[in-house]
Amino acid sequence: MDDLIYLDHAATTPVDPPVLDAMLPYLTEQWGNPSGIYSLARQAKQALEDARQDIADVFLCSPNEIVFTGSGSEGANLALKGVAYARRDEGRHIITTQIEHHTVLHACHLLEKEGFAVTYLPVDEYGVMDLDALRAAVRPDTILLSVMTANNEVGTVQPLGEAIALAREANEEIVVHTDAVQAAGCMELDVEELDIDLLSIAAHKFYGPKGVGALYVRRGTPLIPLVQGGGQERNRRAGTENVPYAVGMAKALTLAALHRDERNAHCAALRDRLLDGICADIEIAERTGHPTARLPHVASVTFANVEGESILLNLDLHGVCASAGSACSATSLEPSHVLQAMGVPVHRARGALRLSVGHGNTAEQIERVLDMLPGIVNQFRAMAVV
Amino acid sequence: MDDLIYLDHAATTPVDPPVLDAMLPYLTEQWGNPSGIYSLARQAKQALEDARQDIADVFLCSPNEIVFTGSGSEGANLALKGVAYARRDEGRHIITTQIEHHTVLHACHLLEKEGFAVTYLPVDEYGVMDLDALRAAVRPDTILLSVMTANNEVGTVQPLGEAIALAREANEEIVVHTDAVQAAGCMELDVEELDIDLLSIAAHKFYGPKGVGALYVRRGTPLIPLVQGGGQERNRRAGTENVPYAVGMAKALTLAALHRDERNAHCAALRDRLLDGICADIEIAERTGHPTARLPHVASVTFANVEGESILLNLDLHGVCASAGSACSATSLEPSHVLQAMGVPVHRARGALRLSVGHGNTAEQIERVLDMLPGIVNQFRAMAVV
Repeated sequence: MDDLIYLDHAATTPVDPPVLDAMLPYLTEQWGNPSGIYSLARQAKQALEDARQDIADVFLCSPNEIVFTGSGSEGANLALKGVAYARRDEGRHIITTQIEHHTVLHACHLLEKEGFAVTYLPVDEYGVMDLDALRAAVRPDTILLSVMTANNEVGTVQPLGEAIALAREANEEIVVHTDAVQAAGCMELDVEELDIDLLSIAAHKFYGPKGVGALYVRRGTPLIPLVQGGGQERNRRAGTENVPYAVGMAKALTLAALHRDERNAHCAALRDRLLDGICADIEIAERTGHPTARLPHVASVTFANVEGESILLNLDLHGVCASAGSACSATSLEPSHVLQAMGVPVHRARGALRLSVGHGNTAEQIERVLDMLPGIVNQFRAMAVV
Repeated sequence: MDDLIYLDHAATTPVDPPVLDAMLPYLTEQWGNPSGIYSLARQAKQALEDARQDIADVFLCSPNEIVFTGSGSEGANLALKGVAYARRDEGRHIITTQIEHHTVLHACHLLEKEGFAVTYLPVDEYGVMDLDALRAAVRPDTILLSVMTANNEVGTVQPLGEAIALAREANEEIVVHTDAVQAAGCMELDVEELDIDLLSIAAHKFYGPKGVGALYVRRGTPLIPLVQGGGQERNRRAGTENVPYAVGMAKALTLAALHRDERNAHCAALRDRLLDGICADIEIAERTGHPTARLPHVASVTFANVEGESILLNLDLHGVCASAGSACSATSLEPSHVLQAMGVPVHRARGALRLSVGHGNTAEQIERVLDMLPGIVNQFRAMAVV
């Protein structure tokens, strides 16, 4: 494990030791059910509410506007289905982009079967959403716009503020959700300034545990819950609360915000070295994603006529953890829908490699990867059927 | 904390130390995303699948039939809404009971708004469902029957096998869900023998962590997922998996099955001593629930013309943790829907007390509670407006 070079932080991150330290009391002596009325329970409730406040402080919203969820996917499903069902008598048109995470796309597909119409906006070659297409898409019956803050596969940051302003200019009633799962750990997101109604995050993308997320729900946003039952989360998500993970998520997010600049600078330097090194040494390599409007930690490339999976398996043999794109579709054989939407030809999209760095990575690790990668790629290049 | 007498195990349980020990490696060195294709990820995937196998071994089903969820509530919502939407073209009638947990009742209320008809079966004075009413309720368009294995407030165990056989005699296509959240830790549940299609559990009721559950889904059962996205859980529940909690739940369930007889005997002895002592010393006390068909750990009583909440707050001052009924509606001022369905008059239902014991409780603790309770109750009895 000591030799492991983990370059898949966009898939998941380790739990930072201070985060685990913050969680452990709630897995040991502080184990009350927050719904109880006795002291043990009230202490758990207090920890939950403190965590909610810490998260609200990062997004500059009220703690009452934070709903804990079991994942980023749950948050996005709650946002999309919750608003669609709550507003269906006002309209049944939804706008999103072609490069959203599958959780948004699949929720939209279900809503299409339920009688909603969905417009999937195209993106340019860098993965930036088409604002003219958005302008043309907004209708009087458009009830919801869902645009990811930044793309998980290629790292492109969307012009979210501009898109929201433009959409609201055409229809001021539109409810806006942003999937900030990949962005929340490294971007400053002020929900008021961005004029967002719903924002979903997942703790495990910023050194918190896997299995917890949050949905920011602006006060007054119509929302029908997915999980009903007890009155937890102000009737927006039933189920006994996962206090340890809520506390861990809050700690992780607070640390991410506190160390944002230094972590981003560290990651961006490693990412740039990776991209520069790969493109200098491997002639069939090409960068994907936007050259400047991008997340600091994602280095995304394609190799022409090489199977990405072969590269990944070989990297694994050398102790390097990486992925082709989204972890959630890692076992799929289809070329990435994101790269396809960006117009990347299939012979390149099949040879996609995403290296995503973290604050624990070192320059020395990056050099080791740059040393081994040309040999690995060229080996498969020779074997590839062109 | 050392003096604490925790008698609210039906609300939640502490995480048993061996359970936490099993979880910790997956919060520290084994933190891969199970969807990755490299070694670190495959190890996490293996742990997840081992946990799934362990749970399947307890319910005597196939691991492919176990879906991890974020709570018991999520499992029940997935079961009810998932089957209702999947089968709505075959029929829109659902049968449940009046004493289900709010998660089932509220999911049913939503389905009623969506055009489904729901029959809420009555229960007798002991909280046992009315089988004649069930027989009369089954219709050709009945698609789903949801009956809890045992009630969380009064502990009554339902005649589940009989109910299922009877329902299927009238309509063999009925899909059956049982909310086994309260029962799974102490009852042997063989899903094949009971002829169940869906069974929901939550780890924190049997010394696992809060924030994870499972839904048994019999092979071939039609089910539309609540949370869509990545292909996790065989497309039945998207979201990066919570490996530590899945591992913890499996460990806790395995221990519960292994020690079932001794734990149940220990709990039943304490429960009986509680009930006998309370009813001997407090003349306004009356037992609720079935005298024999009941869970081993729940002692449920009512006191006439006394506010249950006052008793709870006073018990808390004496270091005793207890509840009036369901933890999930602990802050509600309404008398329990369960007690009301059982015909318990309001002046008694408002004075409900549920003491639920665990394997960590001692006979000495029970005697201490029996010593203090008459004084507490009589104090409020004197104050009560009769």
